[in-house]
Amino acid sequence: MRLQSKSPATVRGRVIGGPLPLICLPLVAVDRDSLLQQADETMAHCPDLIEWRVDKFAGIEDPDSILPALAALRRRIGEIPLIFTCRALNEGGLQDIAEEVRRRVNTVAIDSGHVDLIDTELSNNPAMINSVREAARQRDVKLILSYHYFTRTPAQRVILERLVEAQALGADIGKVAVMPQNYADVLTLLGATLEARTGACSIPLVTMAMGATGVLSRIAGGLFGSDITFAVGGVGSAPGQIPIDDLRKAWSVLPFA
Amino acid sequence: MRLQSKSPATVRGRVIGGPLPLICLPLVAVDRDSLLQQADETMAHCPDLIEWRVDKFAGIEDPDSILPALAALRRRIGEIPLIFTCRALNEGGLQDIAEEVRRRVNTVAIDSGHVDLIDTELSNNPAMINSVREAARQRDVKLILSYHYFTRTPAQRVILERLVEAQALGADIGKVAVMPQNYADVLTLLGATLEARTGACSIPLVTMAMGATGVLSRIAGGLFGSDITFAVGGVGSAPGQIPIDDLRKAWSVLPFA
Repeated sequence: MRLQSKSPATVRGRVIGGPLPLICLPLVAVDRDSLLQQADETMAHCPDLIEWRVDKFAGIEDPDSILPALAALRRRIGEIPLIFTCRALNEGGLQDIAEEVRRRVNTVAIDSGHVDLIDTELSNNPAMINSVREAARQRDVKLILSYHYFTRTPAQRVILERLVEAQALGADIGKVAVMPQNYADVLTLLGATLEARTGACSIPLVTMAMGATGVLSRIAGGLFGSDITFAVGGVGSAPGQIPIDDLRKAWSVLPFA
Repeated sequence: MRLQSKSPATVRGRVIGGPLPLICLPLVAVDRDSLLQQADETMAHCPDLIEWRVDKFAGIEDPDSILPALAALRRRIGEIPLIFTCRALNEGGLQDIAEEVRRRVNTVAIDSGHVDLIDTELSNNPAMINSVREAARQRDVKLILSYHYFTRTPAQRVILERLVEAQALGADIGKVAVMPQNYADVLTLLGATLEARTGACSIPLVTMAMGATGVLSRIAGGLFGSDITFAVGGVGSAPGQIPIDDLRKAWSVLPFA
């Protein structure tokens, strides 16, 4: 039996932080046509959530230019909850987008009514976080505050602090990704997740150890309190993501419920 | 890539502590006929190892009475390595067998030439451990020294000490099983295994957290340094063992090699 969140988030009828962890498939496209093609491929796998990593999109300097693609994407994915993410370059983003542009992209997406969750970095300046949070609250969009360690795994206490900080800043969901150097780092990530879930954090959590060494965390993190795992339907968006069919195969053996 | 043993043990061509963890299926039978029937069912699953948990066998008070069954079992399983275990009642054994009888059962089995590994408890008195170890060495049978916590999970340091103690007492393989009360205990077991593998223990290790909460350790313990996992072919022998087909399904996704 996995450990559920004390305050799960429900989005289009799907419970994040409930009895089962959810599977999210990412879309990473340069233009509308390839976005929609990826969406079709992705939908064939019936994911629980879809994330549009918009930071790969060409022409994003004009935030309004994403609107037609976003509206078309929503038509394709129907009632699947959509995470909208314009990832900062220093946390794994796919192009360099000024903070002000990222803020406006997020606001445009929130106001469109087409996105259900928005993911932005804890490392942004407080004014940007506040602005995105308030826009999201007004439109009942859930806020994910995230932090990424792309080259290392900090101490368990530090990972825990990031999750607590996300909750304190008003996130509906806290997310931390680390890069493990060894299997001890994988245990550190799982231990921090468990400590957050059983202690300081009531909000749903998303944690992962990236890369091949961390694959176990993407499969079994749900037992320890991670509520969403990212897999590959068509394209991947971070190292170590495994095909969704493989993930489901492994899950059929794990005692989540 | 999983962490291999610094001094793997090779038995009938199979490497314990090598690139892949091995799967052992247990036999638990009251008489020769049911033993051989279980062996046939088990062989259909092509396990890496077979364990005969002889402590269920009727008539074991006369140690020589096991010999016909043992010889027949060897004929059935061909070149599959056989672990012979007469488990003490206080560590999960299935009937109360006096220590002296257990010592003689082990000696009879070793001298038969039919068993490849013998498992006895670290909690036995030193004279018995020495006697079994010397008999095993003379016949090139590998010695597993094991310890079971059937109601709790001790501190990581204590689990590590048990594995170190097994190695110090001349075991070819050290084994510790714990009963987790929560997921933190599962991380403790995996952490102790990793600490032993990367530090004090050069011998192959077998560790598991039992019960439903510990299933992850039976699936993924191999990443952290556990070299044998016990699954269910026909019958199980301890709580939390999962069907071998499920185990292999999960393993097909984990990056052991």
